[in-house]
Amino acid sequence: MKKCYGGIDLGGTFIKAGLLSRDGQRITRFKIPTEVKLGVAAVADNLLKAGRMLCDLASKRRSTLAGIGIGSPGTVKYPEGVITGSSPNIPGWVGTNMRDLFSGFPVPVRGDNDANCMGLAESMFGAGKGTKLGFYLTIGTGIGGALFVNGSLIRGASFAAGEYGHTIFKYGGVKYKTGQRGPLEAYVAAPALIRQTKKTVRRGKKSILSRNLDSLTPEDIFKAFKSGDRAAVDSISRNAEMIGVAIGSIVNLLNPEVVVIGGGISRAGAKYIELIRKAAKSFAFDSATSILKIRVARFGNEAGWIGAACLNIMDNE
Amino acid sequence: MKKCYGGIDLGGTFIKAGLLSRDGQRITRFKIPTEVKLGVAAVADNLLKAGRMLCDLASKRRSTLAGIGIGSPGTVKYPEGVITGSSPNIPGWVGTNMRDLFSGFPVPVRGDNDANCMGLAESMFGAGKGTKLGFYLTIGTGIGGALFVNGSLIRGASFAAGEYGHTIFKYGGVKYKTGQRGPLEAYVAAPALIRQTKKTVRRGKKSILSRNLDSLTPEDIFKAFKSGDRAAVDSISRNAEMIGVAIGSIVNLLNPEVVVIGGGISRAGAKYIELIRKAAKSFAFDSATSILKIRVARFGNEAGWIGAACLNIMDNE
Repeated sequence: MKKCYGGIDLGGTFIKAGLLSRDGQRITRFKIPTEVKLGVAAVADNLLKAGRMLCDLASKRRSTLAGIGIGSPGTVKYPEGVITGSSPNIPGWVGTNMRDLFSGFPVPVRGDNDANCMGLAESMFGAGKGTKLGFYLTIGTGIGGALFVNGSLIRGASFAAGEYGHTIFKYGGVKYKTGQRGPLEAYVAAPALIRQTKKTVRRGKKSILSRNLDSLTPEDIFKAFKSGDRAAVDSISRNAEMIGVAIGSIVNLLNPEVVVIGGGISRAGAKYIELIRKAAKSFAFDSATSILKIRVARFGNEAGWIGAACLNIMDNE
Repeated sequence: MKKCYGGIDLGGTFIKAGLLSRDGQRITRFKIPTEVKLGVAAVADNLLKAGRMLCDLASKRRSTLAGIGIGSPGTVKYPEGVITGSSPNIPGWVGTNMRDLFSGFPVPVRGDNDANCMGLAESMFGAGKGTKLGFYLTIGTGIGGALFVNGSLIRGASFAAGEYGHTIFKYGGVKYKTGQRGPLEAYVAAPALIRQTKKTVRRGKKSILSRNLDSLTPEDIFKAFKSGDRAAVDSISRNAEMIGVAIGSIVNLLNPEVVVIGGGISRAGAKYIELIRKAAKSFAFDSATSILKIRVARFGNEAGWIGAACLNIMDNE
């Protein structure tokens, strides 16, 4: 029987899951609600439900399920999948041992941080495939990062690596909800983009966005940007410049072959990415950018479950 | 016969060199002038002279010289030791192939970047010994960095990694000599500390430093700080806070077990380091600082040649 690998991505709204072949082909996938509002026991039940569905799907396809991987928000001790650090989107989730939770499953179970899983997916089968040293950056409501060296993730000494959103960006700058002053996330994540755009429109720049300014989404802004709306162009250009400087910084520090950009921003279009690329190359040294590739993530919002499935492919080799 | 390992540190003023035992003991060391002013041919001659002296010293001690390692400023392609990137302190040095230069020597020759060598020395035998994931930061006239993972250096895809001084610190901040706005080096390296201290004294803070303000050195400031001079305490406290935030950032990104602080600043005293430690722990997440150690480098200004010698210990294993 052919082997397949199950991956589960635990999100604040949906649990996404699927089966992956050893060479990274998506065999099947599904999503079910996380039901955070029903409490942490319901979340655990839904996670187990997704696991059982993966077993059933594998057996229907006459495949051997060779393992289940789970990506979770928060700091996650790998490979047991113990949630050791804050996970604000799922209250009460800290302390969970995902391997214990799945002890009834007759397959190897590994749990890791969700951004790590996304980075792993891109590293093994996506936009970072075939590169030895890469950085994965996801920009959405928050910012996540993953560093891969020789195809292995740098998880950090206490599994807390990759928090690029919480590195200094503007010393002495705005006080963020974390208590820090001036971290990157405060300046470039989606809420900052929305805030900046509103400000630009309210200052009087003519814009199609002025109609629904109170319910503005990043998607609205991306759309307006693509249509050439001046307020959106102004706001996105500033945002892209800042992201570019942040990427240029990581390039000067790590000199990766590839930086993969994922998260909501990766759906913002080629022009946006081109602005980011330009700013990054302008900030970083030529000696580090000569071989650098800045690419959009391949797997979009499927990267989480795909990378979770990869955990058992990588570590069973 | 016992084996020993030669290390040479090419500096802008002195070439420091010595012999190291396989277990990291310093057998002997010396320094000769680099003579940059006489031109790049003289620099190369002096480097070869240091190499011959190492051979003689080993033979006098009836030891087998098992290799020579050379640490050089600039971007250095490892292990050949080709200088591929700018090296402003030694004009004309770019393009040199150190292995070719040493082709007359009957031993393996490896060349690497000087900050990498320093980080390697601390990682193998110094303040980072026994740790798997560490970051070495040297702060002096400039800022250098080295990242070690499982005892190996992350040199980067084009050997340009570690330039932590040229990552963003204050977005939109001062324009630095590199052309970037707001990089870390512009705010915390020795010239910035001197500038800040002069400003504090000139604003009227009573200080023993007011006597020789035009020829102020970091050592003067460290000394005044230790004696409780108010201007020095003020200036150093600000500097330590900024360095602490920069270290806290790297901790959130990489979650190392240890951050080793080297360079001139490592001679500034325990109180200075304690201020840095406090600021770093305040900026970084608890999940990353729980196991973190921030230590002063062990080898001071000998780290360069010791680490250069380590290149052949590490890669001959």
